[in-house]
Amino acid sequence: MSKKIAVYRKEHFNAAHRLHNPLLSDEENAAIFGKCNYPNYHGHNYELVVKVIGEPDPKTGYVIDLKLLGYIIKKEIIERFDHKNLNLDTEEFKDLNPTAENIAVVIYNLLCPKLDKRYELKIILYETERNFVEFPA
Amino acid sequence: MSKKIAVYRKEHFNAAHRLHNPLLSDEENAAIFGKCNYPNYHGHNYELVVKVIGEPDPKTGYVIDLKLLGYIIKKEIIERFDHKNLNLDTEEFKDLNPTAENIAVVIYNLLCPKLDKRYELKIILYETERNFVEFPA
Amino acid sequence: MSKKIAVYRKEHFNAAHRLHNPLLSDEENAAIFGKCNYPNYHGHNYELVVKVIGEPDPKTGYVIDLKLLGYIIKKEIIERFDHKNLNLDTEEFKDLNPTAENIAVVIYNLLCPKLDKRYELKIILYETERNFVEFPA
Amino acid sequence: MSKKIAVYRKEHFNAAHRLHNPLLSDEENAAIFGKCNYPNYHGHNYELVVKVIGEPDPKTGYVIDLKLLGYIIKKEIIERFDHKNLNLDTEEFKDLNPTAENIAVVIYNLLCPKLDKRYELKIILYETERNFVEFPA
Amino acid sequence: MSKKIAVYRKEHFNAAHRLHNPLLSDEENAAIFGKCNYPNYHGHNYELVVKVIGEPDPKTGYVIDLKLLGYIIKKEIIERFDHKNLNLDTEEFKDLNPTAENIAVVIYNLLCPKLDKRYELKIILYETERNFVEFPA
Amino acid sequence: MSKKIAVYRKEHFNAAHRLHNPLLSDEENAAIFGKCNYPNYHGHNYELVVKVIGEPDPKTGYVIDLKLLGYIIKKEIIERFDHKNLNLDTEEFKDLNPTAENIAVVIYNLLCPKLDKRYELKIILYETERNFVEFPA
Repeated sequence: MSKKIAVYRKEHFNAAHRLHNPLLSDEENAAIFGKCNYPNYHGHNYELVVKVIGEPDPKTGYVIDLKLLGYIIKKEIIERFDHKNLNLDTEEFKDLNPTAENIAVVIYNLLCPKLDKRYELKIILYETERNFVEFPA
Repeated sequence: MSKKIAVYRKEHFNAAHRLHNPLLSDEENAAIFGKCNYPNYHGHNYELVVKVIGEPDPKTGYVIDLKLLGYIIKKEIIERFDHKNLNLDTEEFKDLNPTAENIAVVIYNLLCPKLDKRYELKIILYETERNFVEFPA
Repeated sequence: MSKKIAVYRKEHFNAAHRLHNPLLSDEENAAIFGKCNYPNYHGHNYELVVKVIGEPDPKTGYVIDLKLLGYIIKKEIIERFDHKNLNLDTEEFKDLNPTAENIAVVIYNLLCPKLDKRYELKIILYETERNFVEFPA
Repeated sequence: MSKKIAVYRKEHFNAAHRLHNPLLSDEENAAIFGKCNYPNYHGHNYELVVKVIGEPDPKTGYVIDLKLLGYIIKKEIIERFDHKNLNLDTEEFKDLNPTAENIAVVIYNLLCPKLDKRYELKIILYETERNFVEFPA
Repeated sequence: MSKKIAVYRKEHFNAAHRLHNPLLSDEENAAIFGKCNYPNYHGHNYELVVKVIGEPDPKTGYVIDLKLLGYIIKKEIIERFDHKNLNLDTEEFKDLNPTAENIAVVIYNLLCPKLDKRYELKIILYETERNFVEFPA
Repeated sequence: MSKKIAVYRKEHFNAAHRLHNPLLSDEENAAIFGKCNYPNYHGHNYELVVKVIGEPDPKTGYVIDLKLLGYIIKKEIIERFDHKNLNLDTEEFKDLNPTAENIAVVIYNLLCPKLDKRYELKIILYETERNFVEFPA
């Protein structure tokens, strides 16, 4: 049997956004995204769970030090997005619609190069308690 | 790497039920199901999480519009089971024991034909905070 | 300043009920209680929080032993109501509409004589995560 | 003993805001409010708990019908603030700094005239899981 | 009506403890405290909610800056108790039984002198999800 | 499609521990484990979720009776670890560093022989709300 273990670290950030695809007309955007397209933004308390899969190090008993993982998440993700307007204040969503799906993929791509290649990474992002996503599925 | 993303939508319904297999004697039912077999029913706040796996639509950035998924769940599942007695008031559990496992399979079979075939579907059902099930595993 | 401390103990029970006032017509009951009046019952995971206010005992450092309080709640409340149909299976709600408000008052009246008179008692009852009551206010 | 019971109803809304007092300089605002003053807004999933204290109606067993209370909250509060930018899109916070404290007082003042005078009202507002307020104290 | 508002800040710490009154015999301690008296300690994730009541400052709209309150709690409470053995590593519980009641009173007495006298203070401490206390009541 | 269903049962225990590898020097242990290496232990409310995957029994509608699974978990795991010092009081962690990863593997190995071979087993262990692990991944 595989000795692989998954470890999870939960962090959070608060951000404003609106859903809007600049390639579509305003009418299409309003029809597709409804309230989420309102022009002056709304916001969320995003709960971010980072899942790292690997074998535990026999010396430490850790797959990865979760405090270290927490620092990486804070440095790469929380400082970038916390208390920001995703559409206006970030490079990542200047031309990309900040749906929960797209935010999860962006976070994956930001964290992946910061972790050793022996790890498998998954991102779980709660936009609200009732709407959440996981990448890769 | 797969571009597939899982999206989750949480809804809930309140229902009465009892566990009872009509093919067994009353004594066997009481022995197997204990308090859950009491004749006059008990009930739960069922928390239902529907997981849909697919690739995001480049136009919307959505795997599926979670508001739309919410409407489908409400129409197909919540209106059918909310504030009902599962044993007495529903077609689905007239002859099927309403265990959490069976309820999850029934919900899967009700939702599956309402979703585009490109999606993979999973049902997570919380009977209580401490007892829950997922189908398919 | 008062040395009084409040201690809380959380327990839960699952029960079926319907809201119905036998002094009213079926039409009035349906108009007032809507889905909660459906004839074959529905149910809830009731979360019960019992709050006891008093001064800590210098010998133990306890206001009341919460394990002991847990036993009293289990004996007086959980065994009485868990996996029951409140309308059909209990003396307390034979003629009393089992609203969350009335259930909280009944629980208060059942627990009060089991606790030393030096304590003040409050009952917090969650019918769902979104609907809950406290008695006395 | 008082027969008064408190009933609680939980609703939620998602909104953008920034903390900013227009009577202060930009430097003072930045010094006082830090990240919460960032110019392009951030946002929250606000969890709103409305507490209504009164005596239960002997006919219904309700202090107030929580479905009705839910409708009032949705009509007066959720439709007004959900998916809005509190600073830009609302009359209430055009000249009032949208701190959790001020939002709670505004919600209190909006709901109070919609409820019968026999009720006492309290507003509990969660800006995040870790920061929340109650008015009146 | 009072303009007073309560604000709440939640923090947490993890600690080991055992319940033991050195003035009692080992037999009495074991009889009173059961598993909580085991000699080699057990532990908890303590969730601490600090409630501060006061009038909002018209300039900031804050009763108290919750970030500042968070820093005070971290400096006075979390650094003192987090990842410690309450019985062995702290001055406060050398001769005081670390029940949840006593821990709440100790936290109250540590925080009170750090806050302006115009505030009223309450401590809510969760030892587990099911057992928690509030001081003063 | 597979008929397999996953069922989950949640239990909890409170324990003290410290992270320490006896093969390393004290300095190395302090450098690697930081606060978690403090000599007098700290503790946690461990939340344990046991996931069992199998096909439902047509007679009962159960994959496994969750009350029975609860008894097995209580007998094999909770009685062994609850209110214990993992480092001092248990055989399992006398020479094994009690990281969440190692605790999850130990629980897996204790439960596996108690369950019928037709089941697949997974252990999810929350050390805190923000740090948790799953074995096997």
